[in-house]
Amino acid sequence: MPAIRCARCGAEGARYHVSFARVSFCDKCYIRYYERKLRSTVLKYGMLKVMRRPLVALSGGKDSTSALVGLKSVFPDLEVTALYIDLGIPGYSEESERVVRKVTEELGVELVVHRLRDEGRTVPELAVGRFKRKPCAICGTVKRYVMNRVALERGHDSVVTGHNLDDTVEVLFELYRRGQLEEAVRLRPVLLGDGVKLANRVKPLFEMTDEEDLYYVDAKGIEVVESWCPLVRGAKTVSRKVLIHEIEAKIPGFRHTFLKAHVKRYLPVLEKVLGQPVLRECAVCGYPTTSEVCSYCRAMRRVVLQRGGEVAGGKATGG
Amino acid sequence: MPAIRCARCGAEGARYHVSFARVSFCDKCYIRYYERKLRSTVLKYGMLKVMRRPLVALSGGKDSTSALVGLKSVFPDLEVTALYIDLGIPGYSEESERVVRKVTEELGVELVVHRLRDEGRTVPELAVGRFKRKPCAICGTVKRYVMNRVALERGHDSVVTGHNLDDTVEVLFELYRRGQLEEAVRLRPVLLGDGVKLANRVKPLFEMTDEEDLYYVDAKGIEVVESWCPLVRGAKTVSRKVLIHEIEAKIPGFRHTFLKAHVKRYLPVLEKVLGQPVLRECAVCGYPTTSEVCSYCRAMRRVVLQRGGEVAGGKATGG
Repeated sequence: MPAIRCARCGAEGARYHVSFARVSFCDKCYIRYYERKLRSTVLKYGMLKVMRRPLVALSGGKDSTSALVGLKSVFPDLEVTALYIDLGIPGYSEESERVVRKVTEELGVELVVHRLRDEGRTVPELAVGRFKRKPCAICGTVKRYVMNRVALERGHDSVVTGHNLDDTVEVLFELYRRGQLEEAVRLRPVLLGDGVKLANRVKPLFEMTDEEDLYYVDAKGIEVVESWCPLVRGAKTVSRKVLIHEIEAKIPGFRHTFLKAHVKRYLPVLEKVLGQPVLRECAVCGYPTTSEVCSYCRAMRRVVLQRGGEVAGGKATGG
Repeated sequence: MPAIRCARCGAEGARYHVSFARVSFCDKCYIRYYERKLRSTVLKYGMLKVMRRPLVALSGGKDSTSALVGLKSVFPDLEVTALYIDLGIPGYSEESERVVRKVTEELGVELVVHRLRDEGRTVPELAVGRFKRKPCAICGTVKRYVMNRVALERGHDSVVTGHNLDDTVEVLFELYRRGQLEEAVRLRPVLLGDGVKLANRVKPLFEMTDEEDLYYVDAKGIEVVESWCPLVRGAKTVSRKVLIHEIEAKIPGFRHTFLKAHVKRYLPVLEKVLGQPVLRECAVCGYPTTSEVCSYCRAMRRVVLQRGGEVAGGKATGG
């Protein structure tokens, strides 16, 4: 079998085949391809203007690592800080922290570590009651909350996450299927905050596939956590990703077409009709929420109630 | 193996298993179930008010036959006429006409037969140029046009078609994927016309599945055309229906949830933003269109150009 040649430089041994684009690259040209695409996404959506001092949420996985490494490579002057949230998942969290420490040290990027244990509640402890069978839901809520609070307390204007095209399409499919327009309108590359209690949220990998992120860390020779979170077993998010790939196999380009339709056609319509959600201050922690008590504080209270006694967040609330 | 009992009357030998509802019925109770559901759909969407004198487009297949038989059974006083369009597809069209004649005679319903051949162009003749590989597209255009014109010329207020839930979901999936909002907003159980050049379009089977329609004609003992149109081979509409069923297998209730989300959540939003399309009179035939010459007249002209000479529709137009 002849060696595959790089589509750009013609060198033999093109290891990275970008399947949706049907093109193969050697290591060097793949990195160039990925970083040019990342730069183009950042500029297209005006991300530089809303992330002057970003806090990059780093899990140790391929996506968030690609976001951090990619941003530092493409915009070396960007003042980047990394945040690692120790979720307290035995084994998995320690391994993730080791990998995160390694990459931030290599890049010379400051690392902030936030431990849920220090606030008394790890993710396994939070996944109780109706969240027992869906720990990913409560884990997502906690992470979003912690990212935002840590960013604002430390004076960052924005939180950068590694959400990529596959993540977005998977959730979009679910939201469109169920007609959850209020949530669909928030699935976008940049979500502006209020500058006070809500940091901007920026997704520089919005147009990258899982495959593209994986190839990038591989081509760069960067270690990432390859094992899955032990709590993810049976999560709907996994079976939905499988379904999306099955649809893609039948309709090549499905994910890209659908994402483009969302951004170019639906978002403008949804924005016009739905407008911005009305936010108020959480009665417990003071951070923005659409209900009386934010979902983070409600989760904390559930744990406390199960333990019996101890008061959540510093202030007890009813109902 | 014990015989399956009817969920309603308890009789043994319940032959009809409505898979999405996980319930089985005997012949008599299935007919009752189907006709009650049909009545409920007709009343829910206010269809009786917009089809005082409907023209039911009858192809001889399970869906349009179910629509005609169902409407006559549930609303015996409704003044119904059937329209059969002879598409001129060798073998298939003759067989369809035989079946259509039989059911309308049995029901005592007046049958109007419109032959494309009389206007000089059958569907196989129209499926030329860019329609050579997608005859279903041009066939749909021609049928919509003929239904509307025949209805108005004969003084009917509405055209009734057999479009069911599966048809709608299949097209919706495609429109949502591609962000074709202007077309998605027209996918609804009732599309009002203008009373002059555009008849109302009514879909009483909007909430029925393929399975439900098939069972209905079977339970009623009515003959329908079971063979597929010979031109449908390789049509995208078929592979899309297969895909939808594969998704349904992974996400039970997918079709019903998606259709409900479309009707309850998306349609109100899309209507608000998109409004009604601007229609003008076709320069050739005078019937409503969004462009200068309607797609029917353009198709006719293509055939004429291929034959060389003869003028389409009675009036020659440029470009």
